Amino acid sequence: MAGNSRDAGRSVTGRALSVLTAFDIEHTRLTLTAIARRAGIPLATAHRLVGELESWGAVQRAADGRYEIGLRLWEIGLLAPVHTALRAAALPLMQELCELTGENVHLAVRDRWEALYVEKLAAPRSVPIISRTGGRLPLHPTGVGRVLLAHAPARVVQEYCERGLTRHTPYTITEPGRLARELRAVRSRGFARTSEEMTLGNCSVAVPVRDGGGAVVAALGLVARSVRTEHSKLVKPLLPAAEAIGKRLAEHDPARSDAG
Amino acid sequence: MAGNSRDAGRSVTGRALSVLTAFDIEHTRLTLTAIARRAGIPLATAHRLVGELESWGAVQRAADGRYEIGLRLWEIGLLAPVHTALRAAALPLMQELCELTGENVHLAVRDRWEALYVEKLAAPRSVPIISRTGGRLPLHPTGVGRVLLAHAPARVVQEYCERGLTRHTPYTITEPGRLARELRAVRSRGFARTSEEMTLGNCSVAVPVRDGGGAVVAALGLVARSVRTEHSKLVKPLLPAAEAIGKRLAEHDPARSDAG
Repeated sequence: MAGNSRDAGRSVTGRALSVLTAFDIEHTRLTLTAIARRAGIPLATAHRLVGELESWGAVQRAADGRYEIGLRLWEIGLLAPVHTALRAAALPLMQELCELTGENVHLAVRDRWEALYVEKLAAPRSVPIISRTGGRLPLHPTGVGRVLLAHAPARVVQEYCERGLTRHTPYTITEPGRLARELRAVRSRGFARTSEEMTLGNCSVAVPVRDGGGAVVAALGLVARSVRTEHSKLVKPLLPAAEAIGKRLAEHDPARSDAG
Repeated sequence: MAGNSRDAGRSVTGRALSVLTAFDIEHTRLTLTAIARRAGIPLATAHRLVGELESWGAVQRAADGRYEIGLRLWEIGLLAPVHTALRAAALPLMQELCELTGENVHLAVRDRWEALYVEKLAAPRSVPIISRTGGRLPLHPTGVGRVLLAHAPARVVQEYCERGLTRHTPYTITEPGRLARELRAVRSRGFARTSEEMTLGNCSVAVPVRDGGGAVVAALGLVARSVRTEHSKLVKPLLPAAEAIGKRLAEHDPARSDAG
């Protein structure tokens, strides 16, 4: 989602969409000039496209005159199955977990090389965490990421390792062989655990969420302060919660949809 | 957001966006034919536009071959300030309220003639509710809607009443004069209350959320079973929570943004 022109393509639609990719979490409000620069399109083109996107509600003006993502795009984005099906099935269980454990709760899916956080509930008395709903973190040093990697096709794991395992703390596993052993352990023991591999002082535990067919579609995890945490104590409530989410997913297909 | 061509306009961008408006909560998965029909564009045009939207990630194919809103559009939609600023400020307070009261918690903003639900936390032991995150409900019979209407410009209230006050239950206020008196009461007492006006058996209480400048930017509400509820008991924890959200909004502008 970097602000470059890789999506611009040649079509008008592609260029309109490239305007949207100018925005990211570090750039939620942009001037027209910044949009043109980050989208890699001429200012006059940006002016016209932004006008069209604004009249539709994909972008809107902030009080200071800069542009931001519009209410209508937010609303349509929430029709994605990751929200209507997965998040809807998981939220009540995540709330219960958060109450029960007093720790931060994460739900994530894998999107290519990253864990995409579908929902995050922060517990007020738990440890501060860097994740956010709609945000991304790497797969190898996070609990949810490691579950998703452990259940990804072998070629995904291989390519992921070939791209290099970034060291985030002195404890991050950066050696592919060691990561492979850890992923096997995740599959055999049924959960992943990390200790200070993404953020010093934090540890995490995560388990897979399976759909009706048994495929791993998401990971559910807890992040806590490492010094006071026994991993096994965190796993105990996670397993039934993940199972309940899978059951809700299987029972209730909320994609009430047009037959065509 | 009805599936018609009102947004199609004449531009290519407009037609691409009209593809997105073919989707709504009752139609989260659509065939190409259904998209063309609902967007009011020829099938060949729909084919080309959907292809462009798919390659960018605005739409994606479900397992059954139909199209749904894509992960990337969901992700970009979450950059809207209603999520990054308002929802981020409110969520911890909403979780606390949900735990404390055991009732359903709502956060909504006004978008034209409707209350748009920015977040909803359902309490497992509370009453079932029809709202959903990203969903819309009318302003006059809901607690959050009534707060938003009470703090809207007078011409908005007048136009809202002229459009007709739909009766949802035998208890819905549908007489403009009575609604106007109720809105004055909301402003003077500092909160709104409804009893079985949207859904039989449910009642609600809601309070305004104010930004740093004192403007009402959202409404925070609780929905409970009417027979066992005293409105005043629900209002008590709502007021400090709304104040805390306003404080967080004022203190922390999360729109870390490019200077241009």
